[in-house]
Amino acid sequence: MSDPRIITVRPGPGEYAWTFGGAPPVARIKPGTVLDLYTEDCFAGRVRSEKDLVSEVCDFPFLNPQTGPFYVEGAEVGDTVAVHFVSIEPARDWAASTTVPFFGALTSTHATATLQPPLPEVVWMWQLDLERRTCLFAARDSDVTVELPLDPMHGTVGVAPANLEVRSALVPDAHGGNMDTPEMRAGVTCYLGVNVEGALLSLGDGHARQGEGETCGVAVECAMNSVVIVELLKGVSTPWPRLESDGYIMSTGSARPLEDAFRIAQLDLVQWLARDYGLSQLDAYQLVTQGVESPLANVCDTNYTALAKFRKGWLPAGDPHRGLHQQLRETAARL
Amino acid sequence: MSDPRIITVRPGPGEYAWTFGGAPPVARIKPGTVLDLYTEDCFAGRVRSEKDLVSEVCDFPFLNPQTGPFYVEGAEVGDTVAVHFVSIEPARDWAASTTVPFFGALTSTHATATLQPPLPEVVWMWQLDLERRTCLFAARDSDVTVELPLDPMHGTVGVAPANLEVRSALVPDAHGGNMDTPEMRAGVTCYLGVNVEGALLSLGDGHARQGEGETCGVAVECAMNSVVIVELLKGVSTPWPRLESDGYIMSTGSARPLEDAFRIAQLDLVQWLARDYGLSQLDAYQLVTQGVESPLANVCDTNYTALAKFRKGWLPAGDPHRGLHQQLRETAARL
Amino acid sequence: MSDPRIITVRPGPGEYAWTFGGAPPVARIKPGTVLDLYTEDCFAGRVRSEKDLVSEVCDFPFLNPQTGPFYVEGAEVGDTVAVHFVSIEPARDWAASTTVPFFGALTSTHATATLQPPLPEVVWMWQLDLERRTCLFAARDSDVTVELPLDPMHGTVGVAPANLEVRSALVPDAHGGNMDTPEMRAGVTCYLGVNVEGALLSLGDGHARQGEGETCGVAVECAMNSVVIVELLKGVSTPWPRLESDGYIMSTGSARPLEDAFRIAQLDLVQWLARDYGLSQLDAYQLVTQGVESPLANVCDTNYTALAKFRKGWLPAGDPHRGLHQQLRETAARL
Amino acid sequence: MSDPRIITVRPGPGEYAWTFGGAPPVARIKPGTVLDLYTEDCFAGRVRSEKDLVSEVCDFPFLNPQTGPFYVEGAEVGDTVAVHFVSIEPARDWAASTTVPFFGALTSTHATATLQPPLPEVVWMWQLDLERRTCLFAARDSDVTVELPLDPMHGTVGVAPANLEVRSALVPDAHGGNMDTPEMRAGVTCYLGVNVEGALLSLGDGHARQGEGETCGVAVECAMNSVVIVELLKGVSTPWPRLESDGYIMSTGSARPLEDAFRIAQLDLVQWLARDYGLSQLDAYQLVTQGVESPLANVCDTNYTALAKFRKGWLPAGDPHRGLHQQLRETAARL
Repeated sequence: MSDPRIITVRPGPGEYAWTFGGAPPVARIKPGTVLDLYTEDCFAGRVRSEKDLVSEVCDFPFLNPQTGPFYVEGAEVGDTVAVHFVSIEPARDWAASTTVPFFGALTSTHATATLQPPLPEVVWMWQLDLERRTCLFAARDSDVTVELPLDPMHGTVGVAPANLEVRSALVPDAHGGNMDTPEMRAGVTCYLGVNVEGALLSLGDGHARQGEGETCGVAVECAMNSVVIVELLKGVSTPWPRLESDGYIMSTGSARPLEDAFRIAQLDLVQWLARDYGLSQLDAYQLVTQGVESPLANVCDTNYTALAKFRKGWLPAGDPHRGLHQQLRETAARL
Repeated sequence: MSDPRIITVRPGPGEYAWTFGGAPPVARIKPGTVLDLYTEDCFAGRVRSEKDLVSEVCDFPFLNPQTGPFYVEGAEVGDTVAVHFVSIEPARDWAASTTVPFFGALTSTHATATLQPPLPEVVWMWQLDLERRTCLFAARDSDVTVELPLDPMHGTVGVAPANLEVRSALVPDAHGGNMDTPEMRAGVTCYLGVNVEGALLSLGDGHARQGEGETCGVAVECAMNSVVIVELLKGVSTPWPRLESDGYIMSTGSARPLEDAFRIAQLDLVQWLARDYGLSQLDAYQLVTQGVESPLANVCDTNYTALAKFRKGWLPAGDPHRGLHQQLRETAARL
Repeated sequence: MSDPRIITVRPGPGEYAWTFGGAPPVARIKPGTVLDLYTEDCFAGRVRSEKDLVSEVCDFPFLNPQTGPFYVEGAEVGDTVAVHFVSIEPARDWAASTTVPFFGALTSTHATATLQPPLPEVVWMWQLDLERRTCLFAARDSDVTVELPLDPMHGTVGVAPANLEVRSALVPDAHGGNMDTPEMRAGVTCYLGVNVEGALLSLGDGHARQGEGETCGVAVECAMNSVVIVELLKGVSTPWPRLESDGYIMSTGSARPLEDAFRIAQLDLVQWLARDYGLSQLDAYQLVTQGVESPLANVCDTNYTALAKFRKGWLPAGDPHRGLHQQLRETAARL
Repeated sequence: MSDPRIITVRPGPGEYAWTFGGAPPVARIKPGTVLDLYTEDCFAGRVRSEKDLVSEVCDFPFLNPQTGPFYVEGAEVGDTVAVHFVSIEPARDWAASTTVPFFGALTSTHATATLQPPLPEVVWMWQLDLERRTCLFAARDSDVTVELPLDPMHGTVGVAPANLEVRSALVPDAHGGNMDTPEMRAGVTCYLGVNVEGALLSLGDGHARQGEGETCGVAVECAMNSVVIVELLKGVSTPWPRLESDGYIMSTGSARPLEDAFRIAQLDLVQWLARDYGLSQLDAYQLVTQGVESPLANVCDTNYTALAKFRKGWLPAGDPHRGLHQQLRETAARL
């Protein structure tokens, strides 16, 4: 007997959301629901060859389409929605990346504004080998090729923001959104604080892989078929998105300048250790200082995103988030 | 027959340097020299128990003593000095960490100035088990203990700065200095651009281990016995310090705000790939974007330090720094 | 005969907007309309004595009530709405200021996150003398009093944002919003680029006066009776809000870190001189460098706001914004 | 009878200092000494026509020559040196400005590093009319000319830094140095904390005028004949440079990001009001918030510099710096 709570969503044109908040839910789901989702790439699928320049083929502001939002029944302000990524699989055997004028870390931008002209707009098409789990970089200006491991992830996952706001799907902030961390891969649970009734969860922006910081602003962008389980933690607040894998607990922060993103993530991790692992704040500060891993997620989006990771094997005894990650791993294994 | 070029330096009191630049060399060495060095901890060895508060026992500005500087014969402006870390071993079975008033990432500081009072000044003494390669955290406010792996490193290694300057040993910048990256461990080669005749290399600030970002501002600080080989690359310029391990090439950047440190390191890595691996700058930008790892080093010092790492197995064919790292590995194996 | 296009709006409870975008218009107005408006203070009038702490009496996120929005007939994306401030007069003889926990420039905040406790929450009530045009500071911890000049202004004026977003009234960005510049006083024209049909203009956040930077995060907050004239410049785009007084043209930028706000404003001013005053971009860069005044507006809000001012008497011949400011001054004089 | 303590210094080639700290004193002076000084421009006088590009004619790192340093007898760590600017007069009837590759606020730089090429290197020669007190801008790409008021100032004034450091004359920090504020004009007293015995005061970098922020990185650079009086305040510490004019007291901060420079200056002003004007810190915070003026000095140098100004007429009764400014004004009037 199949689980009645598997919901499949394959949005057609015009059925995507472009914001967090402000879009009507595509479905109401009960906690525990399994979602089998198709997500389009950040270009809405319009960059399909080296000739497809974003500035010409894309229709601003209709970038970074989100599948959803989903209204999680029972979710109220102050609760936490957990999204467990069972699988994230490229839906095509190719993916695209590009420079975008005045966007990215190694160019001036509309915020870091200079009088210099933009970098050239260049598209790279990546070939994905889903059997061998690789993606192939082919240089544009030489015949160099490099094969990198496939490491599929979602750049964007979030809920409706607080403070009556509606944010573009390109923005990362306390509601999640476009955090662009390679840690958002299969096997991971993402915790998001609920800001509005029903949470209004959506996700998108699949990447076949990306480096830490997403330096040029664009990853190996790819449509995805993803299976996630959505759960609800009543009465647990989560001020900033947290992630949990089998090996790590992880806090995130999204802000500018980048040190503020770092501070938010590190403080959240310190407070997480203090709340769930029996340490005083100062003892947690010391332990985090010596044990934390601090990879960057993006240094190109509206806010920059930093992570603070702590290895579970190095934690004192504790029980974060009521053991939910382990339960979800077990549920996923049975699917 | 022992190698005549092994020089042992165990500084006595008054024989340390406190700056990069401005201190007379303790020895002139030929390229290829092996240095067997003792380095004192950043507190000049004065924090020896939980009662030894930095604000009381340390003698500002005499912090972060450096062993050296060494005058490298033949080193001229525009060359590169390579420092290969053969071994870095704790010289004691204990190490110390602490909060310092108005210093660290999760407090206001003299630069990020607020009206709030400082955090309490608390010292943590760590026990090192050199056999089992662990260091033991003992909470101050509870009886929690956590054992972390020993991972010895040097927080500070550098040469005299450019522009006629003398910088405190607490400062990281283009001359190296107090970068505080856990990547500066045994087996790694550090490349430093030469700014003054003789380079004037020194190092110190041993850490039994530290997390990425050195969040509270102070690692597990420890005196070290370290063996390094110093080499010289004539005619090779290195604008910002680079590291090379068996598995990775790494660029660093030190600046504020943190995104500028990120930009410097990422741009240097892009230019490294363009110079030594046959890619155009834009192709290198794309490849770095998808393959880079971007761990933070420190987010607490005068400048913040970020790294950009690229896995050697993912690089196109190339020969960085004339194969020096591999040669130094082989030399080290024969010591 | 009275001008038929004077519209008076005195919102009752429940009739304010709390966002830019996302709120239905309270009226449709033709270009040239004179608005006679009441604006409530940023606390929604709830801080009325030293005992009224924001954390206790205010109802988050219902802060910074806006009067409006007004749908400007004919306003389309790419046009510019001009708001001329005819008069801004305190509606009460008192005003309030306060510290707010983890908000302001000289405290850690939710973004510049530290482990320190917040500063004490203290309210200052200011007495306004509308005859003598002064406001009276009375110290809380001593009997010192200081009389400062009244200099009424609106901290918040803006239109619906671009990119499908809805932003809290506490946020300044390219759509205007909570810029908190003391330059937004009577006699000034503010130009705002139109992002959605009808523009959806609103304003609020009256200040009896404020310093540059709004250091503690809160000005001398006061309900206002304000008269403004709203005009429309068809086919003129304004990427960031601009201001014009009899003596100055002014560009604004809102971003973090603060140097990005500075860059945006300065670049906009350079481009303004290049577009309307016959200079090349580099010549304009040089002239701005030597002649600009660069006062800060706020260094406490979600984005920081900087201004770049250039004295009209130092400009080459030119005709910015079709002479609209001068026309509006003349219209205002006839009211 | 002429005052015996007037010392005239007209350095010849090779007699300038290029750093703060690290240079031997050119003279020992008693407190109260009047210095009659010639200062060369920041290019060491090498940019004399539109053809003289900095990248070609200047000899890095020999930029920004300083006249001095002067050893102030009796000055010890913890004291304050006061420099009163009696007069600052252009020594030539022309001055120069320029863009410099990868330097300035509206370009990427070596710190804000991008892959973009630099802006073109262009020189502007300004004609000074010392009678009419004007300086004439002539556009390079058109025949537009603009006359701006002469407003001579020193971009650089400072003492030897703390922490055993030697800093390039291009750097502003707690020791003063290259702050580049237009407030450093005749009639102003600058207070600098003493970090080493004798203080080692020097100054240079005359500007015929500059805008706030020194946007392109280079002001209207000019050799100067300046008369200053040097005084010593024993037992008064000054953590960051302060200025005093007849109308204002002013604090400075130099740091990156720019908000940290703002924070330092504002906190210093709050603490100044608390120390010398009988207010509690929170009352001073409130008063500064509503009354401060916050002009920027430079947003282009190694550190950015911000000022916090408070009008003397709005201060409670108090006696800052022992009334020294008023005394120096009177002494200056008698010269």
